[in-house]
Amino acid sequence: MPLKTNGRIGQSALLLLLEEDCAHIEEQLQLSNWQFCKGKVGSMDTHKVVAAIETAAKNEKIINKDLYREGHALYHAIIEAMQGVTRGQVQLGSMLRTVGLSFSIVRGRPYDEPEEGEWIAVSLYGTIGAPVKGAEHETIGLGINHI
Amino acid sequence: MPLKTNGRIGQSALLLLLEEDCAHIEEQLQLSNWQFCKGKVGSMDTHKVVAAIETAAKNEKIINKDLYREGHALYHAIIEAMQGVTRGQVQLGSMLRTVGLSFSIVRGRPYDEPEEGEWIAVSLYGTIGAPVKGAEHETIGLGINHI
Amino acid sequence: MPLKTNGRIGQSALLLLLEEDCAHIEEQLQLSNWQFCKGKVGSMDTHKVVAAIETAAKNEKIINKDLYREGHALYHAIIEAMQGVTRGQVQLGSMLRTVGLSFSIVRGRPYDEPEEGEWIAVSLYGTIGAPVKGAEHETIGLGINHI
Amino acid sequence: MPLKTNGRIGQSALLLLLEEDCAHIEEQLQLSNWQFCKGKVGSMDTHKVVAAIETAAKNEKIINKDLYREGHALYHAIIEAMQGVTRGQVQLGSMLRTVGLSFSIVRGRPYDEPEEGEWIAVSLYGTIGAPVKGAEHETIGLGINHI
Amino acid sequence: MPLKTNGRIGQSALLLLLEEDCAHIEEQLQLSNWQFCKGKVGSMDTHKVVAAIETAAKNEKIINKDLYREGHALYHAIIEAMQGVTRGQVQLGSMLRTVGLSFSIVRGRPYDEPEEGEWIAVSLYGTIGAPVKGAEHETIGLGINHI
Amino acid sequence: MPLKTNGRIGQSALLLLLEEDCAHIEEQLQLSNWQFCKGKVGSMDTHKVVAAIETAAKNEKIINKDLYREGHALYHAIIEAMQGVTRGQVQLGSMLRTVGLSFSIVRGRPYDEPEEGEWIAVSLYGTIGAPVKGAEHETIGLGINHI
Repeated sequence: MPLKTNGRIGQSALLLLLEEDCAHIEEQLQLSNWQFCKGKVGSMDTHKVVAAIETAAKNEKIINKDLYREGHALYHAIIEAMQGVTRGQVQLGSMLRTVGLSFSIVRGRPYDEPEEGEWIAVSLYGTIGAPVKGAEHETIGLGINHI
Repeated sequence: MPLKTNGRIGQSALLLLLEEDCAHIEEQLQLSNWQFCKGKVGSMDTHKVVAAIETAAKNEKIINKDLYREGHALYHAIIEAMQGVTRGQVQLGSMLRTVGLSFSIVRGRPYDEPEEGEWIAVSLYGTIGAPVKGAEHETIGLGINHI
Repeated sequence: MPLKTNGRIGQSALLLLLEEDCAHIEEQLQLSNWQFCKGKVGSMDTHKVVAAIETAAKNEKIINKDLYREGHALYHAIIEAMQGVTRGQVQLGSMLRTVGLSFSIVRGRPYDEPEEGEWIAVSLYGTIGAPVKGAEHETIGLGINHI
Repeated sequence: MPLKTNGRIGQSALLLLLEEDCAHIEEQLQLSNWQFCKGKVGSMDTHKVVAAIETAAKNEKIINKDLYREGHALYHAIIEAMQGVTRGQVQLGSMLRTVGLSFSIVRGRPYDEPEEGEWIAVSLYGTIGAPVKGAEHETIGLGINHI
Repeated sequence: MPLKTNGRIGQSALLLLLEEDCAHIEEQLQLSNWQFCKGKVGSMDTHKVVAAIETAAKNEKIINKDLYREGHALYHAIIEAMQGVTRGQVQLGSMLRTVGLSFSIVRGRPYDEPEEGEWIAVSLYGTIGAPVKGAEHETIGLGINHI
Repeated sequence: MPLKTNGRIGQSALLLLLEEDCAHIEEQLQLSNWQFCKGKVGSMDTHKVVAAIETAAKNEKIINKDLYREGHALYHAIIEAMQGVTRGQVQLGSMLRTVGLSFSIVRGRPYDEPEEGEWIAVSLYGTIGAPVKGAEHETIGLGINHI
């Protein structure tokens, strides 16, 4: 069940956000026939972060909006990524903090065996801090799920 | 209090682990006079992951091993990074899972104002999964603290 | 301190929700002189779920509404049951999810020794998911406390 | 995406543990061509509870032991069920408590649409308490995942 | 249901640990006919902290060792106090940290109404930190339950 | 790195709230040239508790309001103190409970070595319970951080 040498679904999702110039990542993903999209969301509400990512995933047809199965896989990947961002309590404004995040979603086949099927990675990168300009530091999150 | 344009301490720590070739990241860090180190640790015990990072930070003189103040800053950065890795419970073997991680530590001045002083970033990237070769997926974590 | 053979307070609370026809459970509870009630609540707010159960318990006289002691026992049983329902973060709408739940409360003496006194069980069963019809799966919770 | 009227995968898993006589539940599951198994595990170690359920699922061919995808789905369902059992911290002996649990695993198609595919439910029921005979009360857990 | 003016069970438990000279607290507790005891425990294992407090409570007859009801009330008060001490994960050595704690247990009637009955308070005060002399800071915890 | 004999920053913060007459604590703090302040806050919103403490700390010049570094140290100390108060989920009104708290903040040098620098302690003491007069019990919290 090893991961493909060039099949790092999480690494791709992360580099889409972290590289100054991520054109070569996008090319590689297209060559692999992997689906992906990027977006931004800033909010004091966790539910708005979740909604922004779900909407992007559906609009960009990364997931089939009519299948709960796919929404369920995506939801858990988002919440896992938010745990990296929030580190302890998946709360933002209710704890007087806010986030400004870029997100990426990648759907592909990271394992050599075809039976391992498709997986989805959600990556979040940006800042978290007080609702005051500059009173913030960087944060990352990654959630991966079978889909 | 804005982050410097080229002062992304977390991004640097993450790219040290995620880039195939991170020589340019290392050069940039050296130009900034920022301290950093990298290492690897695989374990089913959270405390061994913590110990490996603390030992590297002390041996590489990223932190002063005689100051609790610096050990305290590092410890909380490590635990925050582990929350991204474990996503919910900071437990490994006790929940029948194991990690194989690369880690990086970066210490520097990410803010324009000199009074904002030094900060430390701990980044973790690798795999988490069952204690069976290949039954694993990628995971990331980042903790940032003032030091 | 063993549980009575027919003194499973949690099992009774759960079967009141899970059985198609729970008349025999209700009879058994009445024979034991145990108090119980059932109700329903659907919400995106955890506090509304808590309030619905507290109100039912007071209206049905399962607990004495004038005793904090009894309200305290019930509250912790409810929150413990909600942890089974939410599995990680006791949050609903703030994480963009909703529940449709049946609940039952049972108060009785599950232990042979009279000194073990009365205990209370709160059970929750229903669905949790996105605020979209059908995008949901089942969930359960049980909290038990001395009263 | 509605659940089938007779397609309650979680309810079936729970009733396999809670009914005195669950023969009719087993028959219904066999008629639906859903796979299921039951077992018991008592331990002060969470990882032994996880291992017991994983082993049963593989031995009874509820999941394909060679597919990480299926092991990943099962693992998260187990941990979610353990959150209902432990209500707050997925820890047993490290918090001086122990469990005696029955478990059931059901794999089937709870939704009307064939595209919603297979799901897995893990249910746990038994007692949790001090490592002293009788110093314990009942506990429940249910985890559901797409597979 | 108001707390008595001089009926602060938590305050008493805390001051037993925090005052240089707590003789007047002890006198006040004796005048109220409230039971209490004090002790010390240092460990990297949460379960040893729990066991030390439970043993003291039974030996000093603060609780009846033959009643699960009372052990249950005490256990939850201890775990709640440990959450103040550990602030996030009820783990010590598994996260490479250790505690040196004083503890106090107080059992009494903090409310004016006799029907509110007895309550128990567990207080913990001491240091938490790395397993290195001096690399530690202070920590507090308080758990209160009806008994 | 030992704590000074009379350098208990947490103990001071706690006694400022717990002693009937805390004038001698205030004198001792003034003699040590340690900064401190006290205040009160009652709310069903965690973010209002956080804001009240942050505002007091800035107004009383315990922290420099223009330095994120100091705000960051304070924020984490507050959240750690809130974990003692809430014992499990840093949530109030969303779980149908409210707090009435006194708070104290102390900034000083608790260690013998001058290099260990300044630390900050945030202490919270008061009641937590249902939004009904008297349906509440005591609660404590303490967070300590280097600054």
